[in-house]
Amino acid sequence: MAQYNETTVTQAVLDSLANCPDPRFKRIMASLVTHLHAFVREVDLTESEWADAVQFLMETGKGSTPNRNEFILLSDTLGVSMLVVSLAQARKSATLKGATEATEATVEGPFYWKGAPDVPLGANLADGVPGEPALYCGRVTDIEGRPLAGALLDVWSGDGEGNYDVQLADPPTMRARGRLRTDAEGRYYFWSIKPSAYPIPDDLTTGTMLRRMGRKNWRPGHLHVMVSANGHVPLTTHLFVANSPHIDSDAVFAVRNSLVVEFEKHPPGKALDGRVMATPYHVANYDFRLAPAREPAMAAG
Amino acid sequence: MAQYNETTVTQAVLDSLANCPDPRFKRIMASLVTHLHAFVREVDLTESEWADAVQFLMETGKGSTPNRNEFILLSDTLGVSMLVVSLAQARKSATLKGATEATEATVEGPFYWKGAPDVPLGANLADGVPGEPALYCGRVTDIEGRPLAGALLDVWSGDGEGNYDVQLADPPTMRARGRLRTDAEGRYYFWSIKPSAYPIPDDLTTGTMLRRMGRKNWRPGHLHVMVSANGHVPLTTHLFVANSPHIDSDAVFAVRNSLVVEFEKHPPGKALDGRVMATPYHVANYDFRLAPAREPAMAAG
Repeated sequence: MAQYNETTVTQAVLDSLANCPDPRFKRIMASLVTHLHAFVREVDLTESEWADAVQFLMETGKGSTPNRNEFILLSDTLGVSMLVVSLAQARKSATLKGATEATEATVEGPFYWKGAPDVPLGANLADGVPGEPALYCGRVTDIEGRPLAGALLDVWSGDGEGNYDVQLADPPTMRARGRLRTDAEGRYYFWSIKPSAYPIPDDLTTGTMLRRMGRKNWRPGHLHVMVSANGHVPLTTHLFVANSPHIDSDAVFAVRNSLVVEFEKHPPGKALDGRVMATPYHVANYDFRLAPAREPAMAAG
Repeated sequence: MAQYNETTVTQAVLDSLANCPDPRFKRIMASLVTHLHAFVREVDLTESEWADAVQFLMETGKGSTPNRNEFILLSDTLGVSMLVVSLAQARKSATLKGATEATEATVEGPFYWKGAPDVPLGANLADGVPGEPALYCGRVTDIEGRPLAGALLDVWSGDGEGNYDVQLADPPTMRARGRLRTDAEGRYYFWSIKPSAYPIPDDLTTGTMLRRMGRKNWRPGHLHVMVSANGHVPLTTHLFVANSPHIDSDAVFAVRNSLVVEFEKHPPGKALDGRVMATPYHVANYDFRLAPAREPAMAAG
């Protein structure tokens, strides 16, 4: 007869995978069970702590909405998202020629909203959104620096007061989001605001956890962007505002040096793209480099 | 400036606990982060696998109700619940004199419903519930075998067709549940059905996971009971039906030899408690032994 206890239960769960038809899933679940049990044993987790954890996960699920995925926020603040993104980049670098020359990725975060409006080059994504105006410009190229015409940028950010659209109303109205394509020379330019440093929402379970951990919930100012082009590896990344508060203590561990951009301040006047600005504005210049999607394998030795 | 990548991110998360005011919570979170990151690294978790995991957790939360906690079912089927219960018992055995003599605990499961009706000794908890009738009887004692009068038994089970009340209607109607107290000699007796082997619900995420793992979702027949008495450690356990199908392959790893009970079959007639049965019935006899809640520490040296 089966007899399960603290000595035998882990192996029993591993043995239950004997008929798993998917080797990858089998490996993932075996590793998950091993590490999860090792954690429970290491801290000698009590029944009331276990019950608290179950309740925490329940509330994390209940509090989530299609525009506010609290499990992503939890993963982000525990560094798991950045670890997964970094491992993916390392894997690409090992297998795809030139991937190390591509722009670095970082976390997607919980607020991506598929279906942002298509806008022309030069459009202002943030009409009426509080914040200091900023012109974003640069090129999308391949890893050799050759321009990628018609590359798609899907851009989103918070405002100059630290709020994303999805946090401001229920149901929310889209703002500071847009999709645009590079011109024949691979150039892009658009207006938005300079995003301020930003407290990740702390009204649900992630906030509770961060407070109990003695952590701050601030992120440095950043603009999200997904960049894609035919024949190239899609990129999900941020541009970080140089010298933003919390640039050294990002609550989701997503900063990379190569993604930090100077926001040059300009006096009122005619901007590079011809727009006449009545107020001071910033210019953030950044070139994105995409790795080729498929590269023939190196010839075997 | 901070620079996070697959090499640095784990230590960065651990460092973020520097100001955690609660040493126990700090230890738990540090261990959780360490093991969670080790798991992600070990399997080199991809971004799409991570997204699947986030979606899985979201659906687990969304599918749960006050009477159907899918996170408990997930913990149960991954052996985490039984590990936590077993560790608690081992801890009590190490610190409480006599705890090793007490009845063993097992998992609570996802279907406990607080507030079952108080019933007198001899009551039938399962009036109208499909299944073969069974008389449950025995005593609640301390670890010396001394009867505990007025001990509370909070009992619940599925029926003879493998269903719990909470699975049969929305909102559900309570059945096969009840609370009763031992008499002056510590005796208890009540009628219910002999629970059949039982498939844990597979309509939500846990079912999906078990199918992908190549596992069955069956549990051997069992009756749940919480037993408590003043001055004693409360007990949450099962009685397992001897020779029940799946007694060797419980989907939640909760079987313990000491909790397996023979259900003696009797022909129609007058039962031990005087009730006259028109159909065959079973008798399940089991004595519960509770450990003392507090025991003076052994004198040092």
